[in-house]
Amino acid sequence: MKYRIEKDTMGEVKVPADKLWGAQTERSRNNFKIGPSASMPLEIIYGFAYLKKAAAYTNCELGVLPEEKRDLIARVCDEILEGRHDGQFPLVIWQTGSGTQSNMNVNEVIANRAHQLAGKTIGEGEKTLQPNDDVNKSQSSNDTFPTGMHIAIYKRVVETTIPGVTRLRDTLQQKSETFRNVVKIGRTHLMDATPLTLGQEFSGYVSQLDHGLKALNNTLDHLSELALGGTAVGTGINTPQGYAGKVAAYIAKFTELPFKSAENKFEALAAHDALVETHGALKQLAVSLNKIANDIRLMASGPRSGIGEIVIPANEPGSSIMPGKVNPTQCEALTMVCAQVIGNDVAVSVGGTQGHYELNVFKPVMAASLLQSARLIGDACVSFEEHCASGIEPNHNRITELLNNSLMLVTALNTRIGYYKAAEIANTAHKNGTTLKEEAINLGYLTAEEFDEWVKPEDMVGAMK
Amino acid sequence: MKYRIEKDTMGEVKVPADKLWGAQTERSRNNFKIGPSASMPLEIIYGFAYLKKAAAYTNCELGVLPEEKRDLIARVCDEILEGRHDGQFPLVIWQTGSGTQSNMNVNEVIANRAHQLAGKTIGEGEKTLQPNDDVNKSQSSNDTFPTGMHIAIYKRVVETTIPGVTRLRDTLQQKSETFRNVVKIGRTHLMDATPLTLGQEFSGYVSQLDHGLKALNNTLDHLSELALGGTAVGTGINTPQGYAGKVAAYIAKFTELPFKSAENKFEALAAHDALVETHGALKQLAVSLNKIANDIRLMASGPRSGIGEIVIPANEPGSSIMPGKVNPTQCEALTMVCAQVIGNDVAVSVGGTQGHYELNVFKPVMAASLLQSARLIGDACVSFEEHCASGIEPNHNRITELLNNSLMLVTALNTRIGYYKAAEIANTAHKNGTTLKEEAINLGYLTAEEFDEWVKPEDMVGAMK
Amino acid sequence: MKYRIEKDTMGEVKVPADKLWGAQTERSRNNFKIGPSASMPLEIIYGFAYLKKAAAYTNCELGVLPEEKRDLIARVCDEILEGRHDGQFPLVIWQTGSGTQSNMNVNEVIANRAHQLAGKTIGEGEKTLQPNDDVNKSQSSNDTFPTGMHIAIYKRVVETTIPGVTRLRDTLQQKSETFRNVVKIGRTHLMDATPLTLGQEFSGYVSQLDHGLKALNNTLDHLSELALGGTAVGTGINTPQGYAGKVAAYIAKFTELPFKSAENKFEALAAHDALVETHGALKQLAVSLNKIANDIRLMASGPRSGIGEIVIPANEPGSSIMPGKVNPTQCEALTMVCAQVIGNDVAVSVGGTQGHYELNVFKPVMAASLLQSARLIGDACVSFEEHCASGIEPNHNRITELLNNSLMLVTALNTRIGYYKAAEIANTAHKNGTTLKEEAINLGYLTAEEFDEWVKPEDMVGAMK
Amino acid sequence: MKYRIEKDTMGEVKVPADKLWGAQTERSRNNFKIGPSASMPLEIIYGFAYLKKAAAYTNCELGVLPEEKRDLIARVCDEILEGRHDGQFPLVIWQTGSGTQSNMNVNEVIANRAHQLAGKTIGEGEKTLQPNDDVNKSQSSNDTFPTGMHIAIYKRVVETTIPGVTRLRDTLQQKSETFRNVVKIGRTHLMDATPLTLGQEFSGYVSQLDHGLKALNNTLDHLSELALGGTAVGTGINTPQGYAGKVAAYIAKFTELPFKSAENKFEALAAHDALVETHGALKQLAVSLNKIANDIRLMASGPRSGIGEIVIPANEPGSSIMPGKVNPTQCEALTMVCAQVIGNDVAVSVGGTQGHYELNVFKPVMAASLLQSARLIGDACVSFEEHCASGIEPNHNRITELLNNSLMLVTALNTRIGYYKAAEIANTAHKNGTTLKEEAINLGYLTAEEFDEWVKPEDMVGAMK
Repeated sequence: MKYRIEKDTMGEVKVPADKLWGAQTERSRNNFKIGPSASMPLEIIYGFAYLKKAAAYTNCELGVLPEEKRDLIARVCDEILEGRHDGQFPLVIWQTGSGTQSNMNVNEVIANRAHQLAGKTIGEGEKTLQPNDDVNKSQSSNDTFPTGMHIAIYKRVVETTIPGVTRLRDTLQQKSETFRNVVKIGRTHLMDATPLTLGQEFSGYVSQLDHGLKALNNTLDHLSELALGGTAVGTGINTPQGYAGKVAAYIAKFTELPFKSAENKFEALAAHDALVETHGALKQLAVSLNKIANDIRLMASGPRSGIGEIVIPANEPGSSIMPGKVNPTQCEALTMVCAQVIGNDVAVSVGGTQGHYELNVFKPVMAASLLQSARLIGDACVSFEEHCASGIEPNHNRITELLNNSLMLVTALNTRIGYYKAAEIANTAHKNGTTLKEEAINLGYLTAEEFDEWVKPEDMVGAMK
Repeated sequence: MKYRIEKDTMGEVKVPADKLWGAQTERSRNNFKIGPSASMPLEIIYGFAYLKKAAAYTNCELGVLPEEKRDLIARVCDEILEGRHDGQFPLVIWQTGSGTQSNMNVNEVIANRAHQLAGKTIGEGEKTLQPNDDVNKSQSSNDTFPTGMHIAIYKRVVETTIPGVTRLRDTLQQKSETFRNVVKIGRTHLMDATPLTLGQEFSGYVSQLDHGLKALNNTLDHLSELALGGTAVGTGINTPQGYAGKVAAYIAKFTELPFKSAENKFEALAAHDALVETHGALKQLAVSLNKIANDIRLMASGPRSGIGEIVIPANEPGSSIMPGKVNPTQCEALTMVCAQVIGNDVAVSVGGTQGHYELNVFKPVMAASLLQSARLIGDACVSFEEHCASGIEPNHNRITELLNNSLMLVTALNTRIGYYKAAEIANTAHKNGTTLKEEAINLGYLTAEEFDEWVKPEDMVGAMK
Repeated sequence: MKYRIEKDTMGEVKVPADKLWGAQTERSRNNFKIGPSASMPLEIIYGFAYLKKAAAYTNCELGVLPEEKRDLIARVCDEILEGRHDGQFPLVIWQTGSGTQSNMNVNEVIANRAHQLAGKTIGEGEKTLQPNDDVNKSQSSNDTFPTGMHIAIYKRVVETTIPGVTRLRDTLQQKSETFRNVVKIGRTHLMDATPLTLGQEFSGYVSQLDHGLKALNNTLDHLSELALGGTAVGTGINTPQGYAGKVAAYIAKFTELPFKSAENKFEALAAHDALVETHGALKQLAVSLNKIANDIRLMASGPRSGIGEIVIPANEPGSSIMPGKVNPTQCEALTMVCAQVIGNDVAVSVGGTQGHYELNVFKPVMAASLLQSARLIGDACVSFEEHCASGIEPNHNRITELLNNSLMLVTALNTRIGYYKAAEIANTAHKNGTTLKEEAINLGYLTAEEFDEWVKPEDMVGAMK
Repeated sequence: MKYRIEKDTMGEVKVPADKLWGAQTERSRNNFKIGPSASMPLEIIYGFAYLKKAAAYTNCELGVLPEEKRDLIARVCDEILEGRHDGQFPLVIWQTGSGTQSNMNVNEVIANRAHQLAGKTIGEGEKTLQPNDDVNKSQSSNDTFPTGMHIAIYKRVVETTIPGVTRLRDTLQQKSETFRNVVKIGRTHLMDATPLTLGQEFSGYVSQLDHGLKALNNTLDHLSELALGGTAVGTGINTPQGYAGKVAAYIAKFTELPFKSAENKFEALAAHDALVETHGALKQLAVSLNKIANDIRLMASGPRSGIGEIVIPANEPGSSIMPGKVNPTQCEALTMVCAQVIGNDVAVSVGGTQGHYELNVFKPVMAASLLQSARLIGDACVSFEEHCASGIEPNHNRITELLNNSLMLVTALNTRIGYYKAAEIANTAHKNGTTLKEEAINLGYLTAEEFDEWVKPEDMVGAMK
């Protein structure tokens, strides 16, 4: 492989000749061989591209960066955001806990690419842009990395998580309406209970997701606060007057999202409770989704020896010889996601507890866990909606069979023939393995017509939504 | 011991003669010998007292319970709320997952105590009130227990957690203002960095708690939704028309808290995401508090071989011979609380994932964990505020010594003598173990007067709050 | 209330006159009002009683404590172990993280009680024993508390957890044998699969618990290592020569458990990985038990609209009118315990991560969580065994019905009539809602006799255990 | 892009022409667009390669597969293990919870590649091998996936985790010996305490890792149990006599690791407690490593305003102008890994709790989390060892300064001049900010010579290792 020499304050480093990164990136590659390479999420790199561009505009507006440099920086940032340099960010999550080296990776790539855009050859001639002095101007790793991660996470949440969950929520809502008259046996403690409609069951799922979405939205305000302008320790040393507010406004403009400058920069560097808060809401959604997916696979179980009240789509061969063996694979994928998200929540919390003085140095792991959870929930909801929820159909025969067989309906007779006779009917049917109707008639307490008139499950499901 | 005979649908049970509970409570005592007795939190019992009274009023208003019975029920509920029957609730958390037996415990105690209030002897004569038919009228364990736990948790959060955290927040805010001119060395990666004020550091803590309180408040709306009126499966079977709304209004009136009827009762029985949500906010506070307590003990460490920038109150003997060994015991208690809360969050989440169909049967463990966390955070904040935070004083000598010794101040010279000379001064001082001032003069780059004029830490802490 | 005056190095404190504790305990009571009082587990106090007695014997043997003092200390320790002073330990978990104050609580109680045993009145005359100089001789909080917690936990694990789990394991093993010929439908992905025996299913549970018990036993060696002799920082300062080994031997003798002196005292004070390790095994058991309890409640679900393959004991009224509604309450209690244990595992881990230098100051929370988990698992297994597992009976009719209805049995015909005809039979039966036998005959591929001879579920369950 | 048509029992699917996979893989690609593609760890694919080869050998030996087919299968498996087909496994973790589709992915790739090796073109002519009938012979997804994951994890643990941790342990041990005479101040509660040697501190770390390695080794036996031979539900249906034992022996032979057939196949499919167990040990190591890394960064903090007792290598520019600002980046990477591992432990536990009947369908998430944790710990230990631990040096001047300044040394005078005079010296020095020696002389209790002779920290560190 061909190399070129790059330098930093510690000396010279050999860098692959075809790469845009510089000395500090290369050092980090060599010093942190932990897990697969390039594990630092690209979303964070894109977050950096937004903020580097915004910083360049702000620095220029405040008179500390010439327009030419601003435009070069902005041009490279736009290229990064177009995905044209995805291969230039080889670093891992498990680096400096402030993400310093990913900040430098971005600075170096921007500087070297700007050199190319200026028509020069990397490594030759005077640098068009200095990674530190120009690209990183009015910035520190300590405020850029948290800014980059807030941008990345906010975008992921509003672009993937919320739309994905909402899509599933809307389909469940539609199903709830479609199934509003499908009366079925209720179950508590997994045991037969009084009836409700399938639509009512689904309305509970919708309500869970509505609450979850509301909780997630509640966290966005904290997440919209940006650390940029705090620089090294939160005091904003080395930033021009008015910088913090302006740079946040530029980021808001470029991302079209309501970012603002964090009121307190000391918190913004030293603690990442905003991430803990947002992940907490993702975890709540995971808890809800686990319940929903679990119910659906229990209701779809069978085809003969399970519950079998609903039919879910068959998306892949279940068993070559076994018809009707439609494995609830989407439920399985979704609940696995939930398990990971619940685990990630602990990782984020543990990272969050351990800030020291002016800096929390668990930024990359917290951000990466959150980005994973946010994407997995969004993607899994879409997958589950498309390949499972949207195709759920009631198995009317089975629902009716289980409902009519149920002994629980006897409660409808209490007010007609009294508690004791009703209980006698149920006990006899339970003992003999017969239906309530059979025993009601056998015992001479009701006629068939009376039974059919009085025992109507549809009257037992209430007027509640 | 003397016993009397109590009956339920399964037959007779011997109950200690001096106890107000009945057959089902006694069965549960015998069937669930898991952990210490009476672990079911009394707060939940009190929650039941509110709801039983509210149900009695609603039932009476809707014409299904006579006034005499309403008043008897209400009278016993008031007695329970006065703490007069605390010894009558011997059951454990680890019972039926719907809390059925604690519901029956309350029903039985109310019925038996009402019998006494009616001037009769328990076990003699016709029962004045039937536990099931009267006390539990228009109710089910499945909607009473979640209602009781919401009441209990809401009260605990607004009466203990929020006031406790707010008290600590206010003291930290006051300290932040008091310390606003105490310039000190900043630290990132635990390494010396540019200066900030002690007040700025504390302002970060305040901001963390402000965000945490906001997050906790955001969860209260979900928590204010009551399941009561859903009865067995959420359909509200066996409730009179208008019951759910009215009973929630009575609960709001009796507790003076903004409770309302859950819009969707199916969620309210089958999922407890509201608890997951509230505990998530408690966990966020734990994360914040851990950071704060940790910083404080690091800053107070010493007296000679640590950081020693602040002095915390000595509340108990640290070492009998070692003066100044003031152990940060309040920090330790608080961070232990944080560890437990982070663990409880997982317990609550795991319980939350596992509802089946119409019922989640992890209610007691979820509620008990949440009540523990809510109380521990509130109590620990008060303890920490009273015995530590309020007494924190800067160790001005030490702060000044560390600040003036710091090599980091050299950054102030960049604009005066250029980067390279500044770096030379710092390097020389680092190598020789001397001060910047000494080497600046030795190297002939500055006079002592220039140094004192140009290197002013107080000019490096910014205009930021 | 009446008080007496007690003193420590910080001065005088008023202590309730009828209590045996002294100044430092009283200070702690006042300084740590966090959660319910007296939450520090009594098991740890008993652990202290063993070690104080052992220390007294060792000190005496090594010539630094007279026999009279040894005997007085030992006598009080024996009284404590008899439970005669349970009310004298009012402190909470949430105190100094080294447990210093509980160590002093024990020292003070022993000293004051010894004064009484010497025929004197507390607070009058010269102290018979000095809490620090005599009772705490050759000790420090830093080595006594971890020793006390190891003793407490080891005892709890071998006296409650292991016997409880073993009892359940043995009953499940017995059931596995009893059910070895009960052929039933298998289920994977919750969907019908090839048959196995109920005994085979239960053998899986037994194997899980066997592995879990083995894992738990594997952790006991680490737990048997005692910190005592390390004193303040692990160096053993202020202990006589030979002390550490001898005191561990005395503890082993008094407890009749294989305790030994930790080879490395620095780890023993500064880290509590032994607790992390043991709790990890408890958590593994919780994972196993959750699976087992969950399977059992799924199999017992019904009575009409669930799986209903087994019948579990009815221990309490499920529904007054609904026969056969036997709620799986023991499964619910057990799985709630599992949720708490999984949460506690995180609390223990978080506490374990945060030792600093020579001391981990999360001792009380780690120990208390572990003691809770160890007891809950043991108790819950006993409860589950006694009130559920031991009474499990197969519902033979239902098992046979589900088995014979199953389409999965068609796989037995592959080798007789070929894959395609077999699949045709299954598909037709699935479509028509009929049995394989009916369609096999209808399609003319088999006679009834051939079907009965060839399709034998009992031949499909293998020779595997 | 060019496509070819592949078929399965559900019909035709278009597959990219240059890929070896078939219809079921392609369906899964389309049905599970959750997170980044190809997230299923390659280690598991390699585990499959071992087991497919072993199954082919066993099937051949037992007479159910011809030698030609065995050899073709084996040849492709060897190619896979050489990494020649890494791009042929595009599926994600978040698929069917049994890993069915990754099993089919491997089957399809082997069959298609064998077709090529047989000199034919994929999609043309009769298939040389049938993915189901030949490659998957005597297997089911339900026993292959757990076998593949056990192989993958076992290998990762013994090839990466254990060597990595051992390497770090050995370096710490060497440091412990090198530093055995470096007497320094001890710290408990972060406060100054009696002295110990730096070697003693490091010996505690070594002891932690020794215990952790022992705990991890303890889990390997459970992990060595293979499910293969259990097929669909654990009964071993469709396997020839003697298959399970032989196939495990072949796997042991091919991997050169002590694998064996699981005694109980029902557990091996339905529960993955072995993974819970192994991950528990990884989590314990994470807890230990967090403590160690944290201590090291605290001790290295400074250069002027921290503790500064040790110097760690400077691997990358910390601050361009700030000499001595050597950020503890390796500590940060390692503790971030610890946070992730502690989180993954919860994901694995949650997955482990939720098996149903004969199958746990959280296999991929459990296996992937474990593989990540095992690799991260191993890699991070190597990185930490190479770039930090191996270069740790004591800062002797600073250690001596802090030691001599310490007031804690006064305890050495107790036996010389009595407790009260000693305390007076310490108190005076604390008040005046002077040294013990100065005040001892000032107060006239000792001469300088006496002080130097009597107050020798090196005599206070004990004879303990």
